[in-house]
Amino acid sequence: MAVTPTPEALDRLRIEVPSWAFGNSGTRFRVFGTPGTPRDPFEKLADAAEVHRHTGLAPTVALHYPWDRVDDWGALRRHAEDLGVQLGTVNSNTFQDDDFKFGSLAHPDPRVRRKAVDHHLECIEVMHATGSRDLKVWLADGTNYPGQDSIRERQDRLAESLSEIYAHIDAEHRMVLEYKFFEPAFYHTDIPDWGTSYVHCVALGERAKVVLDTGHHAPGTNIEFIVAQLLRLGKLGAFDFNSRFYADDDLIVGAADPFQLFRIVVELIAGGGYGDPDVQLVLDQCHNIEAKVPGQIRSVLNVQEAVAKALSLDDEALAVARRDCDVLLANEIMMDAFATDVRPLLAEHRAAKGLPEDPMRAFLASGYLERVADERVGGTQAGWGA
Amino acid sequence: MAVTPTPEALDRLRIEVPSWAFGNSGTRFRVFGTPGTPRDPFEKLADAAEVHRHTGLAPTVALHYPWDRVDDWGALRRHAEDLGVQLGTVNSNTFQDDDFKFGSLAHPDPRVRRKAVDHHLECIEVMHATGSRDLKVWLADGTNYPGQDSIRERQDRLAESLSEIYAHIDAEHRMVLEYKFFEPAFYHTDIPDWGTSYVHCVALGERAKVVLDTGHHAPGTNIEFIVAQLLRLGKLGAFDFNSRFYADDDLIVGAADPFQLFRIVVELIAGGGYGDPDVQLVLDQCHNIEAKVPGQIRSVLNVQEAVAKALSLDDEALAVARRDCDVLLANEIMMDAFATDVRPLLAEHRAAKGLPEDPMRAFLASGYLERVADERVGGTQAGWGA
Amino acid sequence: MAVTPTPEALDRLRIEVPSWAFGNSGTRFRVFGTPGTPRDPFEKLADAAEVHRHTGLAPTVALHYPWDRVDDWGALRRHAEDLGVQLGTVNSNTFQDDDFKFGSLAHPDPRVRRKAVDHHLECIEVMHATGSRDLKVWLADGTNYPGQDSIRERQDRLAESLSEIYAHIDAEHRMVLEYKFFEPAFYHTDIPDWGTSYVHCVALGERAKVVLDTGHHAPGTNIEFIVAQLLRLGKLGAFDFNSRFYADDDLIVGAADPFQLFRIVVELIAGGGYGDPDVQLVLDQCHNIEAKVPGQIRSVLNVQEAVAKALSLDDEALAVARRDCDVLLANEIMMDAFATDVRPLLAEHRAAKGLPEDPMRAFLASGYLERVADERVGGTQAGWGA
Amino acid sequence: MAVTPTPEALDRLRIEVPSWAFGNSGTRFRVFGTPGTPRDPFEKLADAAEVHRHTGLAPTVALHYPWDRVDDWGALRRHAEDLGVQLGTVNSNTFQDDDFKFGSLAHPDPRVRRKAVDHHLECIEVMHATGSRDLKVWLADGTNYPGQDSIRERQDRLAESLSEIYAHIDAEHRMVLEYKFFEPAFYHTDIPDWGTSYVHCVALGERAKVVLDTGHHAPGTNIEFIVAQLLRLGKLGAFDFNSRFYADDDLIVGAADPFQLFRIVVELIAGGGYGDPDVQLVLDQCHNIEAKVPGQIRSVLNVQEAVAKALSLDDEALAVARRDCDVLLANEIMMDAFATDVRPLLAEHRAAKGLPEDPMRAFLASGYLERVADERVGGTQAGWGA
Repeated sequence: MAVTPTPEALDRLRIEVPSWAFGNSGTRFRVFGTPGTPRDPFEKLADAAEVHRHTGLAPTVALHYPWDRVDDWGALRRHAEDLGVQLGTVNSNTFQDDDFKFGSLAHPDPRVRRKAVDHHLECIEVMHATGSRDLKVWLADGTNYPGQDSIRERQDRLAESLSEIYAHIDAEHRMVLEYKFFEPAFYHTDIPDWGTSYVHCVALGERAKVVLDTGHHAPGTNIEFIVAQLLRLGKLGAFDFNSRFYADDDLIVGAADPFQLFRIVVELIAGGGYGDPDVQLVLDQCHNIEAKVPGQIRSVLNVQEAVAKALSLDDEALAVARRDCDVLLANEIMMDAFATDVRPLLAEHRAAKGLPEDPMRAFLASGYLERVADERVGGTQAGWGA
Repeated sequence: MAVTPTPEALDRLRIEVPSWAFGNSGTRFRVFGTPGTPRDPFEKLADAAEVHRHTGLAPTVALHYPWDRVDDWGALRRHAEDLGVQLGTVNSNTFQDDDFKFGSLAHPDPRVRRKAVDHHLECIEVMHATGSRDLKVWLADGTNYPGQDSIRERQDRLAESLSEIYAHIDAEHRMVLEYKFFEPAFYHTDIPDWGTSYVHCVALGERAKVVLDTGHHAPGTNIEFIVAQLLRLGKLGAFDFNSRFYADDDLIVGAADPFQLFRIVVELIAGGGYGDPDVQLVLDQCHNIEAKVPGQIRSVLNVQEAVAKALSLDDEALAVARRDCDVLLANEIMMDAFATDVRPLLAEHRAAKGLPEDPMRAFLASGYLERVADERVGGTQAGWGA
Repeated sequence: MAVTPTPEALDRLRIEVPSWAFGNSGTRFRVFGTPGTPRDPFEKLADAAEVHRHTGLAPTVALHYPWDRVDDWGALRRHAEDLGVQLGTVNSNTFQDDDFKFGSLAHPDPRVRRKAVDHHLECIEVMHATGSRDLKVWLADGTNYPGQDSIRERQDRLAESLSEIYAHIDAEHRMVLEYKFFEPAFYHTDIPDWGTSYVHCVALGERAKVVLDTGHHAPGTNIEFIVAQLLRLGKLGAFDFNSRFYADDDLIVGAADPFQLFRIVVELIAGGGYGDPDVQLVLDQCHNIEAKVPGQIRSVLNVQEAVAKALSLDDEALAVARRDCDVLLANEIMMDAFATDVRPLLAEHRAAKGLPEDPMRAFLASGYLERVADERVGGTQAGWGA
Repeated sequence: MAVTPTPEALDRLRIEVPSWAFGNSGTRFRVFGTPGTPRDPFEKLADAAEVHRHTGLAPTVALHYPWDRVDDWGALRRHAEDLGVQLGTVNSNTFQDDDFKFGSLAHPDPRVRRKAVDHHLECIEVMHATGSRDLKVWLADGTNYPGQDSIRERQDRLAESLSEIYAHIDAEHRMVLEYKFFEPAFYHTDIPDWGTSYVHCVALGERAKVVLDTGHHAPGTNIEFIVAQLLRLGKLGAFDFNSRFYADDDLIVGAADPFQLFRIVVELIAGGGYGDPDVQLVLDQCHNIEAKVPGQIRSVLNVQEAVAKALSLDDEALAVARRDCDVLLANEIMMDAFATDVRPLLAEHRAAKGLPEDPMRAFLASGYLERVADERVGGTQAGWGA
């Protein structure tokens, strides 16, 4: 009963890839390096551009500050454009300085809060140079032990800090605020759920929006409900896509539960968020044991397949079944869309646009990985520490 | 390092007990009955009054409509007063009529929504008769299968239905809106989290508040954070207290994780909610295998112990340790309060008020259970079905 | 890269449907009835036979004792055969008698244990009459409160009770022992995990095997690992198939996470369990809001699709990718099989066997539901209470 | 109703502290260092000895190989003895070498398995030099993506590798085998649960035992049940104590759920494991934001308090309540022991043994932390990477 998505509908998909995905990352036990890993933001962009070159879906690259600090932002911006991509969201980092051991924007010490706010103001300066629209705030703030700090006072401090940062963003900027269930804080996190991010965003104003990272929820959480709710409230600003079996595993998107990804995209479309530039789709993964560029390509393709399946949903038939409370039929219509093998359609769609039908095979055959492994010798591989 | 709570502070505790706790309840596998189980609301009130008589802590009794429907509400009210208690919150029930199989306030069919709204209007009539302040809305609404109904449209219908009900409550009434992670709906619940309850309450107005049931969260959720956040937002209306190891187990409060209960009370006090009549403390449990009146007494005492421990917290020392980021000391101050054995103090406090030092032993020795087992013969024992 | 399953491979699928799935069931909040619900075991068999008639996959029907007690077991057996199905596993029930309030085979009182053992001996008598091979033991035994009973002593009592029952089964019988994480016990369950079921089965002997119910695990549990492990140990006796988003939701199999179902079937095949009559596939669901016979048909078809996808796995290519530690390729081969739309192949396969291509549409068009709704008037609808 | 523990019973407590707890550790986001952190195994032992000096409870120190590799094991052993402690368990490490990116004992490549086995044989050599009894095996082995490797074949390879190692341990040695739910592997872990560890230990032989790390379970798992079961089966070899709110948070033991710790100790005592040298109690924590030596002291004291509470349990009264199925009384007896404030008794007990009544205050007042912060300047602080 599935319908066929139009090329126009498929073409509305845009995915931002993060610069850090191309550096080394891993677990607290070990970070494994691989030959060819980029050593600076320029090389990260080169890798990111490969994803777009083969899929046509990833035209922008998110930056992380200070990991991606360069002397000449204009040069980085031109480098991106030469590679056929644009610089995107700027992500702040307030979790690696010794001063931030007990928090940043919610820290009990005003000096540390000042430093954390200043870091964000610096990020806003970067945004001017890079032409970025979004300042993404993910905080490691929280506590590890009951009693360690006042949950309530931390909320108030956080609100004040965010408010000062928000006052500095331009009219065309947005602040997007991420929540996370736990990690690296293990007792309480200062923005643990969408509700908390939402109330801060409402207090801040129109240009503050919630970021939903698909790996940042309690076990069993119905994520598509949150998507539907935030779209309904006009406050869904961006996704961080990845997948998880257990915690914030940061696996390739769609790898753990492709049906969940599909349901999320169904709600995204139903709520008007698909193709809306105000609802940014971003990848956020840790390629610890798998090759990084192919890992990003796989994720981008998985999102595209989920979108194509979701666009195959027979909305009219579904509306009738729902009206009739025909549980089994409504579910069957949903499952029909999911069961549809959209890969031939997508291959055809790519071919029509001059893209490789099978982006993964094309990339692997391109010799890119071998080339960078040869070229990128010496120096320090980029990673979460830099 | 713990401090000693004052009698005045201890005296601010008030717990509402629910009429349905004294009837039979259980699991989908089996509901076990026991001799002496009440057969009507009058007998439920008699049982509830025993809790207050022995503890001095449970002066009000929540009703459930239509389970507690009587012909003469005035008679029920006078019966309560004769027993030394007051009628409290009225809980609506929209999950047992065949019409509500696919939902109530969020049902796709306007006829069913009308019926569900009307049921709430009837509850408001009951409130006039009983002198109740709070209309508590817990909904079983949700779906079992992906696709079954539109998550988004259900939110909109829910908002509309709630809005109509809210328009009918009096200036001195409140609507308190409960959320629940799952059950009886197994795919999505229409009010699954505090965020959703909160946004509906904000949309409704000042007298709409969130109900936090301690058993209604995803595994691992930091409940005291939600308490702190809702108090900060001025939207915490009531607690449903119980405890759980797994899901909504509805065990005796404090039985599964007494330290969590303590932390919740610490935040309740820190946020100004303790002793505030606008933050109602209610029990909501299922005494499936244990004796019911003693089960309620145990819960009331467990809450009282948690309160006494929380009142023992050395706030001044804690503030210093927190300011100094002395993680271990701050945690130790918290644990000191928890480790304090407050039972002797509470026994003394009770004695000073003419209450039995050991309410449980006193109740068991009173012969009440034996008497009602003898008297309450014939008729149909009350339960979740009536 | 997927391969095409052979008809012979597809034909090895056999699924047992449970008699109780056709009666009413639900949640502790409410059990909704529907017109046409069977009123006795004979009518349940008639419904079950419809599943087999339309799918060709469900030749046997599991019984539940005493729910399915009849005066004349021979008549029930002949009735089944007339309908084209066979009687299958006998499930014991030791969770609804008042005596079993605090347990059955692990109860502290020897009198109650005796009664529970005797119930199982009675089930063995039934097996003689029905020609059943398997005695399935699922126990509600456990406790709700810490301290309530001795965890250790309950294990020892359980072992002794099981041992006595096992001594009574015939050489061609099996005892299959189910585990469950929680519910209806909410503190501890006497057989909470596969490890516990396994150690009891090992102690009992060769003909004792573990039952894996897909809804009976802690959140996040990797179920296919348990499948692989139990097959490796030669101790996987049966599956109870259903699906869940939260707890033991007992939804239609494959409805919550079709990719998980696929992975389970992949391990079943890899470990030699597929098509092995010693690894019984059984459905165990609660059709609370959906139509029951169609619900069972949907489940059977979902299992069949998962099997067809799993049989599409390119084992040779996978072995090479695994040997090379090519993470992305190995995963891609797995996902290729899952992404394959096997429905046209299965429709063709059915047609070749004289079955309806679309069993669901064929059943709905058959008029069966309307007919039984007309005929089955009066009497008491069967349910979990009978 | 609680009873008073005897000094003899209290004196049977022995806790092993791990050398790595005194080095730096943290999360994947950041490892924070602190002044005074040890730079080599000798300094780690000095820190560990402080725990024993102030508590009298931690006479042995677990080593980690190769993190604790020294040229002269005899010198390390004498250093320990001079400090008043003994070298304890040797922990192997097969998760940080690039060769182990895809596993160690279960790796698809025989060369890597050989290397991993050889590492364990080297550990056994170390045990000869250190006089250690236990070889502790915790493996990071597993996969991140479905299909990545064969779950079943990995079990078989694991069994073979373990078997070769086991063949090399001496008659007075033990191999203790740890399980873990997830992390660093995010799809499947090769030893994810006690059942898997148990079946491998049974296959290996008498001197192979299971290690239970309290942070290595699925959410909601009843850990005390596993303690009871493993003691019943004679296969509980050791604990790794820590606490968690979410995943393997590795917090101070007893910090997250002191009641759970109490219940675990109750089962340990009930099952005969308390004071049995064959059931080793070891700490395993990550002191990321708190001071390390005090963090270990706190953990040791928390275990001691849990033991004292558990020894306060009125076993006789409990047996009667259990026999009578008096749920509330049995639970009350349990809670009485937990509610008892054992700190005065323990202070007295320490004083009688010449130990400081308040070990934490005594240690903090000793000036040790200031001294090592002054002395340990230069060099590289020890951590998980060395």
